[in-house]
Amino acid sequence: MQNVKLTIAYDGTNYHGYQLQANADTIQARIEAALWKVYGSEIRPYSASRTDSGVHARGQVIHYFTEKRIPTGRLPHALNSELPNDIVVKRAEEVSPNFKARRDAKAKQYRYYVYHAPVMDPFWRNYALYMRETNLDIRKMDRAAKHFEGTHDFSPFRAVQGSDLSINPIRTIHKFRVFEPQESLLVFDVIGSGFLYKMVRIMVGTLLEIGRGSMSEQSIREILESQDRSRVGSTAKPHGLYLERIWY
Amino acid sequence: MQNVKLTIAYDGTNYHGYQLQANADTIQARIEAALWKVYGSEIRPYSASRTDSGVHARGQVIHYFTEKRIPTGRLPHALNSELPNDIVVKRAEEVSPNFKARRDAKAKQYRYYVYHAPVMDPFWRNYALYMRETNLDIRKMDRAAKHFEGTHDFSPFRAVQGSDLSINPIRTIHKFRVFEPQESLLVFDVIGSGFLYKMVRIMVGTLLEIGRGSMSEQSIREILESQDRSRVGSTAKPHGLYLERIWY
Repeated sequence: MQNVKLTIAYDGTNYHGYQLQANADTIQARIEAALWKVYGSEIRPYSASRTDSGVHARGQVIHYFTEKRIPTGRLPHALNSELPNDIVVKRAEEVSPNFKARRDAKAKQYRYYVYHAPVMDPFWRNYALYMRETNLDIRKMDRAAKHFEGTHDFSPFRAVQGSDLSINPIRTIHKFRVFEPQESLLVFDVIGSGFLYKMVRIMVGTLLEIGRGSMSEQSIREILESQDRSRVGSTAKPHGLYLERIWY
Repeated sequence: MQNVKLTIAYDGTNYHGYQLQANADTIQARIEAALWKVYGSEIRPYSASRTDSGVHARGQVIHYFTEKRIPTGRLPHALNSELPNDIVVKRAEEVSPNFKARRDAKAKQYRYYVYHAPVMDPFWRNYALYMRETNLDIRKMDRAAKHFEGTHDFSPFRAVQGSDLSINPIRTIHKFRVFEPQESLLVFDVIGSGFLYKMVRIMVGTLLEIGRGSMSEQSIREILESQDRSRVGSTAKPHGLYLERIWY
């Protein structure tokens, strides 16, 4: 048996998230269909992360077991020929039979994009959260984001609905930066050991409250200390979120 | 009567071009519908340029006459509330009753994007021409593009089908640059007094032949001198093209 690791990118706009669902089009369904075409038999891929409906990926990682060996150098082109053009296999590698994409992930990077201007840019409509507010305090959000760094109990920043509450809520955030790479565009860039359900979007929603002045710069430190989930901001919409990279 | 000038941006992916058509969804149809909602009566907008199916705009200009006066400061928000989110009114201004968007345009800027890499980036699929070739000679294309600058008879670079051949083919190109703003992305940036039907896409198609080495750097000068249209490159696909700006 060969264990194959794929690094994939996708525009999540037209899908109901990564994970297979009965009556909805998902990334996993499209990948299974492409694997079937290329290998001629049913293959089940396992992903490192289950991105929600509308969420994008530049570096999702999946793996699968196969008895039929196809040279990994040929796989990206073979699979991309069978995939719709909003899902792309970037790399294929053979890995140890013990490798598991989810369990072995050492760190993950997510980015969240916000477009803020008096008028929306139509080219960002599916790729960034739109806010009419232009007076967001970016440096304040960047300073506040530093309070997420380190090892904490992130329970207040996880969605209760749909989340497996038996999962250990202790996570380590290695880096959290907020910056403006070009006018009107804000990027929230976070690297951590792992993330709870909807955690990135709740962290971003809270930072945006701080940026517009309705919460203080110290709020994040206080919420992590008090574990008071009633004080977190609302969950930012999915279409601004990108799974950027996974380290093994 | 008030003459109102609108600067609009749109993602052309889901439309059959700017101009009104009987059985197809177009930008103009959507704008007319929004004007009807906001003004309560039928208003006909006139555009500076009729972009083709799939072509995008960041700075298309249209104008219309109205008896009912709505303060121009309120118009972008009022119209954007009635428009789908892939069409956006950026600015509204009252202009002289004599202003005509097409006739009075002094210069236009177009950009064409090419994404070239071994694997396509799914986020560029509707916004740049994809080429697997990575060894395009960018500096050579930039040097060759300079041969378009100046005043020439551009007949060899216009589409014969669908074009009004009575239109004067003498045009002036003020600037034509080819550069790589980020890895894998190529931009063709051209400013001219005006452009013939499909002229930008034929110029780009010809430069790409030069970039991949199948035509010489001197070809453009030679075609303009000989007026030999059999030597031009193929018309580059519409989805990489953006109408950037119009000067009055």
